Amino acid sequence: MSALDLLFDFLRFPSVSTDPARSGDVAACAEWLSGRLADFGLKVEVHPTRGHPIVVARNEHRPGRRTVLIYGHYDVQPEDPVAEWKSAPFEPVVRDGVIYARGSTDNKGQILAHILGVAATLKATGDLPVNLIFVIEGEEEIGSTHLESFLAAHRDALKCDVIAVSDTGMVAPGAPTFTYGLRGIATMELRVTGPRTDLHSGIFGGAVMNPLTALARLLATLHDGDCRVAVPGFYDAVHALSDWEREAWSRLPLGDERILGLTGAPALVGESGYTTLERTWARPTAEINGIGGGFQGAGSKTVLPREAFAKLSFRLVPDQSPQDILDKVSAHLRAQCPPGVVLDIQSGHSGEPYLTDPHSRFGKAAQRALRRAFGTQDVALIREGGSIPIINTFKRVLGVDTLLLGLALPDCAAHGPNENFPVANFEDGIRLNQALLEELASA
Amino acid sequence: MSALDLLFDFLRFPSVSTDPARSGDVAACAEWLSGRLADFGLKVEVHPTRGHPIVVARNEHRPGRRTVLIYGHYDVQPEDPVAEWKSAPFEPVVRDGVIYARGSTDNKGQILAHILGVAATLKATGDLPVNLIFVIEGEEEIGSTHLESFLAAHRDALKCDVIAVSDTGMVAPGAPTFTYGLRGIATMELRVTGPRTDLHSGIFGGAVMNPLTALARLLATLHDGDCRVAVPGFYDAVHALSDWEREAWSRLPLGDERILGLTGAPALVGESGYTTLERTWARPTAEINGIGGGFQGAGSKTVLPREAFAKLSFRLVPDQSPQDILDKVSAHLRAQCPPGVVLDIQSGHSGEPYLTDPHSRFGKAAQRALRRAFGTQDVALIREGGSIPIINTFKRVLGVDTLLLGLALPDCAAHGPNENFPVANFEDGIRLNQALLEELASA
Repeated sequence: MSALDLLFDFLRFPSVSTDPARSGDVAACAEWLSGRLADFGLKVEVHPTRGHPIVVARNEHRPGRRTVLIYGHYDVQPEDPVAEWKSAPFEPVVRDGVIYARGSTDNKGQILAHILGVAATLKATGDLPVNLIFVIEGEEEIGSTHLESFLAAHRDALKCDVIAVSDTGMVAPGAPTFTYGLRGIATMELRVTGPRTDLHSGIFGGAVMNPLTALARLLATLHDGDCRVAVPGFYDAVHALSDWEREAWSRLPLGDERILGLTGAPALVGESGYTTLERTWARPTAEINGIGGGFQGAGSKTVLPREAFAKLSFRLVPDQSPQDILDKVSAHLRAQCPPGVVLDIQSGHSGEPYLTDPHSRFGKAAQRALRRAFGTQDVALIREGGSIPIINTFKRVLGVDTLLLGLALPDCAAHGPNENFPVANFEDGIRLNQALLEELASA
Repeated sequence: MSALDLLFDFLRFPSVSTDPARSGDVAACAEWLSGRLADFGLKVEVHPTRGHPIVVARNEHRPGRRTVLIYGHYDVQPEDPVAEWKSAPFEPVVRDGVIYARGSTDNKGQILAHILGVAATLKATGDLPVNLIFVIEGEEEIGSTHLESFLAAHRDALKCDVIAVSDTGMVAPGAPTFTYGLRGIATMELRVTGPRTDLHSGIFGGAVMNPLTALARLLATLHDGDCRVAVPGFYDAVHALSDWEREAWSRLPLGDERILGLTGAPALVGESGYTTLERTWARPTAEINGIGGGFQGAGSKTVLPREAFAKLSFRLVPDQSPQDILDKVSAHLRAQCPPGVVLDIQSGHSGEPYLTDPHSRFGKAAQRALRRAFGTQDVALIREGGSIPIINTFKRVLGVDTLLLGLALPDCAAHGPNENFPVANFEDGIRLNQALLEELASA
C-alpha cells in the first residue's frame, strides 16, 4: 500500500473528538492507527481513557542511545460549515498536488509522515538510530483532557531526552521552519439570562434589560478602539518581543499581502504598534468564537429573548497564565455587566503559552535535519499563534523540551473548510523524520 | 357546538404566517373561519392574496345605519421555544379557567368573541343594529403585507364610519380598558462579514477583525448608559407625554411589582426619567430580537467566524416615522462600523405609531359599551407598547379612526410560550360586541 493510500485511509475516519456522536469513529481511527504501527514492526499499546484512547508505539530500546518521543494526534476539528467544502471533508482527494480533507494537515498528514519515515528506516536498515516512542492521542482538539494524567502515570516508561512534534507551520512552501514559541489559550462561555421566558418586545420593550443587548455591551468592552484587549491587567505578564525576533520576522516571506489573501478579509486590522506577524505570534488576543440568542429563523419575530450566550477564547503569550487571565476577564465582565440580567461564566479548556531557546543542542540538531530534508541553508525561526497546550505538559511532567518541526502551510485551512496538505509536504515530512532521528542520535 | 368548542377548533390550526411550511395550515384556517361566518348568516368572501387570504364577512347592509368595520387576524406567531410550553401550543386546554394555546389571546380568542357576539345578536333578533363588515386577515404577524393593497382595491365596499379592533390589553382582570395609542415598529437585519471562510483563531487571531466582535461593538452603540437609544436624532420627533396621561397612568392597577412579576426578570431596567408604563407605552425602544454567528454547538471550537447577524426592531411613538428611524439607525451603524468587516443592512416590515382622541363621539360610545359589558364605571384610558400597523393603514386608506377595545391580560404571554386567555375574557368579549354595536348605532 502506498504512503498516500495509507494517508487516505487515515483521513477517512471522521475522528471529531468534540462530538459525542463520533466517539465510535474516534475509537475506530485509533484501532486502525495501532494496526499500522504494529505492521511496521513497532510494539504498540492502546491506552483507554475516560475520553478517547492514547496510542503508544516504540521500537526495541537499547541502552546508550538517545530516546526521542514523537507526539501527534489522530483526532480532528468538526467539519462545519460543511456546505463550504469543495469536496467531502472525510473523502480525501488530490487536486493539483494537494490533498484535501479534514485532518490532512492537522494532524494526520504530519504524524503519519513521521510514522512512515520510521517505517522506511526500519525497512532499509532493520533498526533506528534512537530509542523511539510515539505518543498519539485523540483529544488534542478538545484540550488533551486525559494526556497529562496518562503522562504522569507512565512517567518512567515515557522517559526521554527530547520530544519532537510536527503540528506547526512553515512560513512558505519549501521553506523549512523551526518554531520556538506558541501562544497559550484560555476559553470560557458566557450566558446572560433576563426574563423568565421570551417576552413580547412591544408589551415589555423598554421595561427590562434585553439579554442580547447586555451581551453585546459586555462583549464590546473586551477591546478598546486600538484593538487592544481592554480587560484590566490583561497585558501585565506579557513578555516583550526581542529586537532580534522583530528583525528576523520582518525578513520572512510572509508579508501582509500574503496574509490578507489567506484570510480573504476586507483588510488586516489589529493592535496598534505591531506588525501582523507580531500580532499573531507574540501578542495575546480576545476572540468571540460563537454567539447566539433569540430568534434564529427566517423573517422576523419581535421577541425580547430570555437568554443569550457567547463562547470566548483568549490566545496567550509568555508569561501569561490561563487561570490568571480567566480570573481577570471574569472580574472585568462581572464589573461591566449591565443591571437587570444575570451573568454566568463557565471556564473551558486552557493551555499555557510556550517559549524555548532555538539555539540549544537539540534545537540546532533539528535545524540541521530541516536543512538536510529540504536541501536549503535557510531555516526560518518563528513563533506561532496557535496553541499546543501539551508542549507545556511535557515540560512539566516529563521535564523535557519539545522541538516543533511543522509542515503546515499558511493556506492549509486547518480548522476551516477545505483543509489541505500538499503531497510534497507529506513526502518532505517522511524525509525529515529520517534526518531528524540521525541528527538527534549524534547531537 | 359551544362557544369554547368553536374556539378550540380555531386554535388547533397552526396558522403561523411567517413559516412557508405552514402556508397550507394558514389557508385551512381561513377556510374554517369563512365556513363559521357563513353558518352564522353572514355573507362571506375569501380574498386570495400573494400571501395568505383575507376573509371578509358582512350582514345585509341597509341605508341610514352606521357602518362598523371589525378587524382581526387569524394568523399567529411561531410557537418556539416549544420546549417551554406546559401543553402543546396547538392543542388548546383549559386549566383553572384559562385557555392555553398559541393565538388564544392574539388574536383568535378576541376576534372569535366578536363573531360570536354578532351570531348571538343575529340569533336573538334576526338583525344587527348596524351595517357590519368583518375583515380578518392572515398576515398580521408578518406586517400585514397585502392588507393595504386590498383595502385600496375595495375602498368603496369597505366604506365605514368607524373601525373596532380587539387586539390590545386590559390593565387587570375585569378592568375594562380603552386604548388610544400604540407604538409603531421598524425592523432591520444586520449582517457583518469578514474573512472569506471561518479561520483558525490561533493562526489568524489578532490579524483580522472578528465579525462577532464588530457586531457586538455595533450593537453596544445602540444605547447609552441610561438605557436611552444613542442613535443621533432618534428622539427628535417624539411627542412628549401629556400631564394628564402621566397622572392617569400613575393610578392604574399595573404597578412595577406586577410588571416585574410578569416578566420574571431580575429587575426592571429602563430609560431614566420615566416610569415603567411610560417606558413601554410612550417611549421608543431599540431591541435586539435575535443574534447569531460562529460555533453554536456544545463544547468549544476555536474559530474566527466569517460572519454574524442580528435582527433588530424599534418600537416607535408619535410622531416618529419608521423610514426616518431606519435611515437614522442605518447611518449611525455605518458610521460606527469597525474597519475590516462589511456591514449589510436589510430593512424589514414596519408600521407607524398611532394616537387618537379618547374623548371623540365614537370613543365615548366605546367606553359606554365597556362599562355595560363589564358592569363597572371605571374605564382605564391607556396607550400600549405593541404595534398594530394596520390601524394607520385604515386611517390612511379608509380615512377612519379605530377603537381599540382589547381583552388581553398582562400575563397572556402573547408571542411567548404558554400564551393564554381566560374563559371569562372570552365571554366578556362576546357581551362587549353586543353592547358596542348598540352604542355605536346611537352614538
